[in-house]
Amino acid sequence: MLNNKPVIGITMGDPASIGPEIAVKALNNNDVYDQCNPFIVGDAGVIRKTMNDLKIDKELKSIKEVGEAVFDKNIINVFNLDLVDPTKLEIGKVSPLAGEAAFQSVKKVIELALNKEIDATVTGPLHKESINLAGHKYSGHTEIYAHYTNTKKYAMLLVEEDFRVIHVSTHVSLRQACDAVKKERILEVTELISDACKRFGIKNPKIAIAGLNPHAGDGGLFGDEEIKEIIPAVKEAKEKGFNVEGPFPADTLFSIARGGAFDGCVAMYHDQGHIPFKMVGFEWDRESNKMKSVKGVNITLGLPIIRTSVDHGTAHEIAGKGIASEDAMLLAIKYAVRMVNN
Amino acid sequence: MLNNKPVIGITMGDPASIGPEIAVKALNNNDVYDQCNPFIVGDAGVIRKTMNDLKIDKELKSIKEVGEAVFDKNIINVFNLDLVDPTKLEIGKVSPLAGEAAFQSVKKVIELALNKEIDATVTGPLHKESINLAGHKYSGHTEIYAHYTNTKKYAMLLVEEDFRVIHVSTHVSLRQACDAVKKERILEVTELISDACKRFGIKNPKIAIAGLNPHAGDGGLFGDEEIKEIIPAVKEAKEKGFNVEGPFPADTLFSIARGGAFDGCVAMYHDQGHIPFKMVGFEWDRESNKMKSVKGVNITLGLPIIRTSVDHGTAHEIAGKGIASEDAMLLAIKYAVRMVNN
Repeated sequence: MLNNKPVIGITMGDPASIGPEIAVKALNNNDVYDQCNPFIVGDAGVIRKTMNDLKIDKELKSIKEVGEAVFDKNIINVFNLDLVDPTKLEIGKVSPLAGEAAFQSVKKVIELALNKEIDATVTGPLHKESINLAGHKYSGHTEIYAHYTNTKKYAMLLVEEDFRVIHVSTHVSLRQACDAVKKERILEVTELISDACKRFGIKNPKIAIAGLNPHAGDGGLFGDEEIKEIIPAVKEAKEKGFNVEGPFPADTLFSIARGGAFDGCVAMYHDQGHIPFKMVGFEWDRESNKMKSVKGVNITLGLPIIRTSVDHGTAHEIAGKGIASEDAMLLAIKYAVRMVNN
Repeated sequence: MLNNKPVIGITMGDPASIGPEIAVKALNNNDVYDQCNPFIVGDAGVIRKTMNDLKIDKELKSIKEVGEAVFDKNIINVFNLDLVDPTKLEIGKVSPLAGEAAFQSVKKVIELALNKEIDATVTGPLHKESINLAGHKYSGHTEIYAHYTNTKKYAMLLVEEDFRVIHVSTHVSLRQACDAVKKERILEVTELISDACKRFGIKNPKIAIAGLNPHAGDGGLFGDEEIKEIIPAVKEAKEKGFNVEGPFPADTLFSIARGGAFDGCVAMYHDQGHIPFKMVGFEWDRESNKMKSVKGVNITLGLPIIRTSVDHGTAHEIAGKGIASEDAMLLAIKYAVRMVNN
């Protein structure tokens, strides 16, 4: 904290993607400086070029230590890792160069947070193929964070205004996701989302648990995971004092929860939570055949440090065009600040 | 057809539910008579009571043959099966009496359509438990229709304005749904939705196929159904001349499709299609803790007769209160008319 405002490290994301653009656009928004002391972690050359392309007339300050940052509305601080030779970077392309730069930015921001030099981390998009080409075998940020913070129990929370969804499993096949529906894990994520809601300022968060099968199994007619795992988990969570209900048929639950009946939902698998979430936050533009809006924050819960992120991808097809929306990045910063402050 | 307008049989649904109310409210809407010649199939006593409760001053005409109907804006025709002793019917309750009446109404409307006495059928909601208590072991309308029309290849299509989703499987466990993802079945439903879109007046319908696993399997990293079944199905569908694309990651596909990029989507399992569909059509009211709007039409494709339906349940908790919305019923009638006319 500095002047009562959290210090936030924001990764530039994949330098060949819209990552640098949305980071720069977000830090060109002066409201952000009222909430926190932000800086970008990545490559100063990439950020300078992005600022020039976007005709942003703030000063870029390249720093090598957090202490060197000057938090001022007219300055964009970049923790410069000197990662990218700009003559070799191809915008909009998958490459080991882009992957390595994205990966090192994430690794550094985790290190800064673990060292308590910053209060929270916010991440831009990275491309799994690029980081894998660079030799880093992770399926995404969440796994990198889990590894470098040595965390075993974590979960992905998606947030769009009052609509919050946590996942029992994420990047596994749907068959493996069925196997992952276990009482202990459901209890774990119920506790994680309930605690997170409290950090967002909700006193007695009301949590809904989804079923796995259609109609939540219809009393055992279509699958028995509800009877064997989910109903016992709901029972035990109630006994532990959590304000939970369920299991609910997933098809109506999310439209009810989005309408305000619950503060958070437990989804049994990746798409069960991601489909309704992106129906709310993502908006397709028929004219341009592009996503118009991609609001939504992805938060990793269970880590010893705070991590929020945009929930969209690298959007290579529009990288470097100056048309990417920074909405999700602004939301991710806002949520990081809120989590520090509670 | 009568005076160039299709003759439509509309079941009253479960008499203890909101079914009679939404049928009566829909037929109290004079626009319906401009599109078609509608009548209710069920019990005249139930409909009379519903009309009285709702203070609807049209005339009720009880008929025993379609030919007796008088299609006039001031008359609500009821094909009276004399099913319900009104002194024994408990509104809002599951019972074999209600189940038997609902079931017989469906059976009759199918018979009338097979006999070509009517051009299309529209169904109100029924309660699975009630029909099962009455001795009819079906998981829903779709299975009753399949049985009585002797249909093997059928699928459930959900429609809300330009958003249309067909399902590879419906009322099976999620594990069985994974097993049901087979090339032949995907081709079958692709053909069904493509043909249906043509019947809705779309010339060269553009169909999107969803993946089964998160990120559509991410190149085989999370599950191989995309590689083994879905990609070959897309390839073969293209060779057969269908305008299809995919497989797409399901979490973004539906928000893109709803935005207008596709005329129809193929969902791999019940909730994959039902979750985005109900996010669009259903609206929860925070004040009253009730669904405010439940727009959406459920159409069974592959049958020798036309069947459209509301896509909501019996809503026993609000039955008899006069507050149910007939929106979905009006849409179901509109779609039945459109399918007859194309």
